[in-house]
Amino acid sequence: MPVEKITSMQNPRLKRLVRLRERRARDEEKAFLVEGYREVRRALERKVALDELYFSRDWFLGENEAALLSAAEAAGARLFELSKEAFAKVAYRERPDGILAVAPQWRRGLAGLSLPAEPFVLVVEAIEKPGNLGTILRSADAAGCHAVIVCDPVTDLFNPNVVRASTGVLFSVPCVVEEGPAVLSWLRARGIRIVATSPAAGKLYTDCDLTGPLAVIMGSEQYGLSEFWLSNADLPVRIPMAGQADSLNVAMAALITLFEAVRQRSGRRP
Amino acid sequence: MPVEKITSMQNPRLKRLVRLRERRARDEEKAFLVEGYREVRRALERKVALDELYFSRDWFLGENEAALLSAAEAAGARLFELSKEAFAKVAYRERPDGILAVAPQWRRGLAGLSLPAEPFVLVVEAIEKPGNLGTILRSADAAGCHAVIVCDPVTDLFNPNVVRASTGVLFSVPCVVEEGPAVLSWLRARGIRIVATSPAAGKLYTDCDLTGPLAVIMGSEQYGLSEFWLSNADLPVRIPMAGQADSLNVAMAALITLFEAVRQRSGRRP
Repeated sequence: MPVEKITSMQNPRLKRLVRLRERRARDEEKAFLVEGYREVRRALERKVALDELYFSRDWFLGENEAALLSAAEAAGARLFELSKEAFAKVAYRERPDGILAVAPQWRRGLAGLSLPAEPFVLVVEAIEKPGNLGTILRSADAAGCHAVIVCDPVTDLFNPNVVRASTGVLFSVPCVVEEGPAVLSWLRARGIRIVATSPAAGKLYTDCDLTGPLAVIMGSEQYGLSEFWLSNADLPVRIPMAGQADSLNVAMAALITLFEAVRQRSGRRP
Repeated sequence: MPVEKITSMQNPRLKRLVRLRERRARDEEKAFLVEGYREVRRALERKVALDELYFSRDWFLGENEAALLSAAEAAGARLFELSKEAFAKVAYRERPDGILAVAPQWRRGLAGLSLPAEPFVLVVEAIEKPGNLGTILRSADAAGCHAVIVCDPVTDLFNPNVVRASTGVLFSVPCVVEEGPAVLSWLRARGIRIVATSPAAGKLYTDCDLTGPLAVIMGSEQYGLSEFWLSNADLPVRIPMAGQADSLNVAMAALITLFEAVRQRSGRRP
């Protein structure tokens, strides 16, 4: 298929790409932006369908872009070549690399998760900052979580900054968006214990048994966990804090807790 | 002292504030910017001298700014009131809160550190991203590190994004900037063991004894640790990675390692 060229700054496709930065447009179109060579490559590796791929050679940083374009086209994406100026208009990043794709959103339900006998999942509630949500996805990926469940999202999973901060993990870790009560019932039905970090908890997170079916739950940046989750947690735990009370943000607390669980679950206790 | 008002966009003080975003200007003047209510409050709490404090009521978010201005003035800072537009010009943040101070830089040497019998320090080498360096400072603070030693800095400690990402921890955790060989000699002379994370290490970080005098060392985002530190590390350790190879960045790896050391050093082993 011949590549369509876009040079007019008035081209309606450019306006649409800018609109897709906004949640309302993403929700309406059920589509989202995937910007950057690394992120698009990971989407392709994970067989995420890309509807369209916009590129501009003037912004390319390396030598591998041609192969990426071929792979995207072979996977069904329609290609558009943009002038330097046109790409600058649609690029969301400060330092664009000339690659921007549009992909359809997906919805996965709790029922669609396939989990092992001893599930290890992360539940996050009402995270506000896309950068934190993306970092949390990376942490869950590194820790080998079987799923990330997003309750009552303030920022949507398909926010461009989530895609970016997740470095493409969004395409590999199974993510479900669901309301709190449904998640709780689902966890209870499967005998998955819920560990919640709270500065008020008496027990240290390292003194709790984090083996077996486990859900680590983390609350919002500003308000922490809701009363709903605090009162339903099986294991309230505290991370010791030596310095300023707010030195650990939610993404850091999640990472620490997940890796303590990894340590215990690996059966290696020095 | 009467507060000087600045409304002219041509005022040379405004230009100087913009220049101080650049390292060259910071190095020349030996001064740096502290933007934001929280950061300035922490600087004052820690008796960090502020030369000047610029404010604009049009950007204030709360009710406590007046008390902060009084405290800054009492501590010797000269106050300048800016128009909304003038503050917008000098604000570095996307969402300014009407508070911006200039403070003199400080230099602390290794000899100036006062450490307990079993020191627990973090050494970072050639960190490139200010946001990572700031996050690492927060982690060191939360973990109760006695000092952070910055080797061969690519980004300087006084970068506005370090100040910001550290949420003011820069003012409380003792930080030293020094070259690698001097740091190594200093560690060796004090019998401080060096633990270095590396994907190539055989032993897991949780299987190593991280008690006693300890330095955790982390390398740059792009290149990892230099050969110098890798070959001089006493304990090469590996953090297990379940997902994408790059899911853990340097700040995340530092946090995980520091909190495993905290666990072991607390003497609580479940």
